Amino acid sequence: MAVSLRLPSLTLTNLFSSPSSLPILRRRRPHGTLLRPPPLAASFSSQRAEAASAQTQDKSKSSKGSDQVITPRSQDFNAWYLDLIANAELADYGPVRGTMVIRPYGYAIWESIQDYLNVKFKETGHSNMYFPQFIPYSFIEKEASHVEGFSPELALVTIGGGKELEEKLVVRPTSETIVNHMFTKWIQSYRDLPLLINQWANVTRWEMRTKPFVRTLEFLWQEGHTAHATPEEAENEAIQMIDIYTKFAYEQAAIPVIAGRKSKVETFAGANKTYTIEAMMGDRKALQAGTSHNLGQNFSRAFGTQFLDETGQMQHVWQTSWAISTRFVGGIIMTHGDDAGLMLPPKLAPIQVVIVPIWKKDEEKVAVLNAASSVKEVLHTAGIKVKLDDSEQRTPGWKFNFWEMKGVPLRIEIGPRDVSSESVVISRRDVPGKQGKVFGISMEPSILVAFVKDKLYEIQSSLLERAIAFRDSNIVDVNSYDDLKVAISQGKWARGPWSATNEHELKVKEETGATIRCFPFEQPEGIKKCFMTGDPAEEVAIFAKSY
Amino acid sequence: MAVSLRLPSLTLTNLFSSPSSLPILRRRRPHGTLLRPPPLAASFSSQRAEAASAQTQDKSKSSKGSDQVITPRSQDFNAWYLDLIANAELADYGPVRGTMVIRPYGYAIWESIQDYLNVKFKETGHSNMYFPQFIPYSFIEKEASHVEGFSPELALVTIGGGKELEEKLVVRPTSETIVNHMFTKWIQSYRDLPLLINQWANVTRWEMRTKPFVRTLEFLWQEGHTAHATPEEAENEAIQMIDIYTKFAYEQAAIPVIAGRKSKVETFAGANKTYTIEAMMGDRKALQAGTSHNLGQNFSRAFGTQFLDETGQMQHVWQTSWAISTRFVGGIIMTHGDDAGLMLPPKLAPIQVVIVPIWKKDEEKVAVLNAASSVKEVLHTAGIKVKLDDSEQRTPGWKFNFWEMKGVPLRIEIGPRDVSSESVVISRRDVPGKQGKVFGISMEPSILVAFVKDKLYEIQSSLLERAIAFRDSNIVDVNSYDDLKVAISQGKWARGPWSATNEHELKVKEETGATIRCFPFEQPEGIKKCFMTGDPAEEVAIFAKSY
Repeated sequence: MAVSLRLPSLTLTNLFSSPSSLPILRRRRPHGTLLRPPPLAASFSSQRAEAASAQTQDKSKSSKGSDQVITPRSQDFNAWYLDLIANAELADYGPVRGTMVIRPYGYAIWESIQDYLNVKFKETGHSNMYFPQFIPYSFIEKEASHVEGFSPELALVTIGGGKELEEKLVVRPTSETIVNHMFTKWIQSYRDLPLLINQWANVTRWEMRTKPFVRTLEFLWQEGHTAHATPEEAENEAIQMIDIYTKFAYEQAAIPVIAGRKSKVETFAGANKTYTIEAMMGDRKALQAGTSHNLGQNFSRAFGTQFLDETGQMQHVWQTSWAISTRFVGGIIMTHGDDAGLMLPPKLAPIQVVIVPIWKKDEEKVAVLNAASSVKEVLHTAGIKVKLDDSEQRTPGWKFNFWEMKGVPLRIEIGPRDVSSESVVISRRDVPGKQGKVFGISMEPSILVAFVKDKLYEIQSSLLERAIAFRDSNIVDVNSYDDLKVAISQGKWARGPWSATNEHELKVKEETGATIRCFPFEQPEGIKKCFMTGDPAEEVAIFAKSY
Repeated sequence: MAVSLRLPSLTLTNLFSSPSSLPILRRRRPHGTLLRPPPLAASFSSQRAEAASAQTQDKSKSSKGSDQVITPRSQDFNAWYLDLIANAELADYGPVRGTMVIRPYGYAIWESIQDYLNVKFKETGHSNMYFPQFIPYSFIEKEASHVEGFSPELALVTIGGGKELEEKLVVRPTSETIVNHMFTKWIQSYRDLPLLINQWANVTRWEMRTKPFVRTLEFLWQEGHTAHATPEEAENEAIQMIDIYTKFAYEQAAIPVIAGRKSKVETFAGANKTYTIEAMMGDRKALQAGTSHNLGQNFSRAFGTQFLDETGQMQHVWQTSWAISTRFVGGIIMTHGDDAGLMLPPKLAPIQVVIVPIWKKDEEKVAVLNAASSVKEVLHTAGIKVKLDDSEQRTPGWKFNFWEMKGVPLRIEIGPRDVSSESVVISRRDVPGKQGKVFGISMEPSILVAFVKDKLYEIQSSLLERAIAFRDSNIVDVNSYDDLKVAISQGKWARGPWSATNEHELKVKEETGATIRCFPFEQPEGIKKCFMTGDPAEEVAIFAKSY
């Protein structure tokens, strides 16, 4: 069942084989460098229900659209991020502190993520199902490190149907406990194994420092839970799933994550091993973008989840769990976004091509709109996600900015002269200005479709390549603690041999703010000495500040 | 935007036009009439966390599969329903009283429902999004009838992150209040309207009498929420959505619901009008299977959701909300199921065809399995949802019962003789015994695929026709309260002219247990007199006992 899909080496060449996949990297234009106080950069955490409630009376709301310029990314990354989310209409603040409303455009990105992963999960033998979100408090207490990890973050239901409850209910922060309670009922024999399930659900963690998508009080995710007859199978499954996440990040999201194993200190509360994909954001902080846990027998022992093996012996099952959440949307924003707004990888973009018709005189209008409609139809038929923005309330220039803010990969412009020449103008979101613009692409369906598909492919590839270059130029190999301190103080990631203690690891965190993000799967050859202790080390670790 | 899809008349002829769509109705075989105590018919409501917890140590669990016979439907409908859910592995009890775990097979039915509706919602202009599930308690209190309707059913979070909260949080029972809070931020002008959104989410209602799928403490649903500039648009939207539900019920679920308007007494807490689809279950009780509400300006006034109209006037928006939930899965079970188990309409069946290979001698095995695999491949390629049950742990007879219990519409049997004659045997789930069996269907792909598709079509049509006949033979036209009492005491639905008061309606409920299910959209012509008061009546109402 758990055949490893481990990727031998994630390089551009085996992901993209198009001849046009190596465009030249270009500088971003200095756009929106206007200095002004960021309008929507108020801290997510400090926002309160009372304030939000008061705001509902405030009619000076930010107007829909993108007349506004967002805070430049280089000036204040956090303010830029919040401005972008507001202006691209990805999310809004919920009335309860730390909660988030995912707006249609942001939710459509999540749906793209779901569509891809859901297929991969089913292909690898997992079934979707649904567990209740209310968990008896006593369940959480059964696995010692689990309760220690989660109890500070719990939301508790104490009143139901007007009455105080006898036992408090936990609103699920994750489902290992209730899953094991049920697995214990369903699993009796080796014939019932492996048991491979997944659920798409909301989860609640009472976080103090929140930030839209990245860390919210309630978020959406998928959580896979599996039970196996042997430790090898469980390990293979945990690796298989982190590999699926890695492939997803590279090929769909164009995010060159570094996959590896967490240190003991950073391992999930209740797991033996945690595998992770770590992504470098535009401010060079690390984002843990997905995890896969080998739970060993920790939960099966706590919940008595046993099976009769082929030799007639009772054994506890070996388990895994793995998850990706709406946090990933934040990762996409912070990897690819620029001062003009969001920049979406074509494979996850809800709209891949926007058509903006341009006319001045009324006599031009009909011809332009007809041409635009037929181009839309041609692309739609070819399976391209296309939108025609034919609203008359906004100017073409306003629309250009608006759809750039929304990160649509390609824009097609059609004016009266294009109609006469039966051609269109195509602009790339990722290459600003004239350099990203091609004139005179024929409207002839086969030519147009081929050109658009090729460009989308090129953009997907280019975003990944750019992100790889950015990542690699910001990872420093270190051979001493001093090296690490310098690298971290410059905002970079530090990679160096490590075999020191948990105490050393916590000391690094205290003194530099950096944590071990992972021991990457890809390890350099040769003899290594721990940069902290000088002792022999088997692996390098990556240290970084993180979200 | 809100173009009405109102169906002129839902008859078989306009839903199914296949020449083979009118098979003869046949009697069900007397199957499983063994008298014995129902093993899994314990009341869902009486089940407690402590008991469930204790059960986890009980190793005498019901074994997977269908060696067991379920309680006959005619003997105890409720016990039959619970046995079926357990044996077909649709759901299980959660550890908290009244909660339900939706198992993979049950969840796959829900996914079929989602797949269909999600497309229809998007086709009619709605976008998915996500609202937080925690709602400040004060929100619920803002709309007077809403709080009255929902306050007895609320689950409240009072502790978060280890601290007592200043304001209790409601775990959403429905989202009108939080939706309006956000709509107030997003809507300023008529240009922002209509605003058409939907969310797929879990909801919590602290129900006292629970039953898997039909009424659970937590359930899954979709809830649509829309805002419009005029009352006409809102009314059209509410009608459009109940029409989509009606079409879904007829064409996909083969459930001949009766669509209509709820009485004032039965209208949703906060709505001006509630439209409903009412389905007759196998025990002739009514199930409210979907609702669409015209909310008027009730929530927009409570939350100050206003817009500047085209003439420059501030107005409150006009709204709707509409929902279908996992309860619908219960409706499918109770409409089509029989003593052999579940019976799924082909369009919603996660597995439409199961292939059972049959061999005795080892030398037959390879040939039979090869033939079975190639038949599977042929059907799969043709877009048919097919499963090959080639496990060697169970006999063919066991498998027949198991897949009948799971309600798979068609079974293909392949034995050594079929291999030699290059043909298969095909059995219909809905026509038991020899009558439903056809021998010697050629394995030649084009012939086999055409036959299977035709049979699936026929089954879909037959299930609906049978349900219509059952429904129509159990609705009695009444002209006096005495008539109604007789009809209800016989377990039937009573349809009669009604213009009496709310008090009369409550009296009927008290004295007979029946409520007004709806004033159906399809009304008889002619002059009518209220059967209760003798006053003139404009409409007939349908009364029935219900879930």
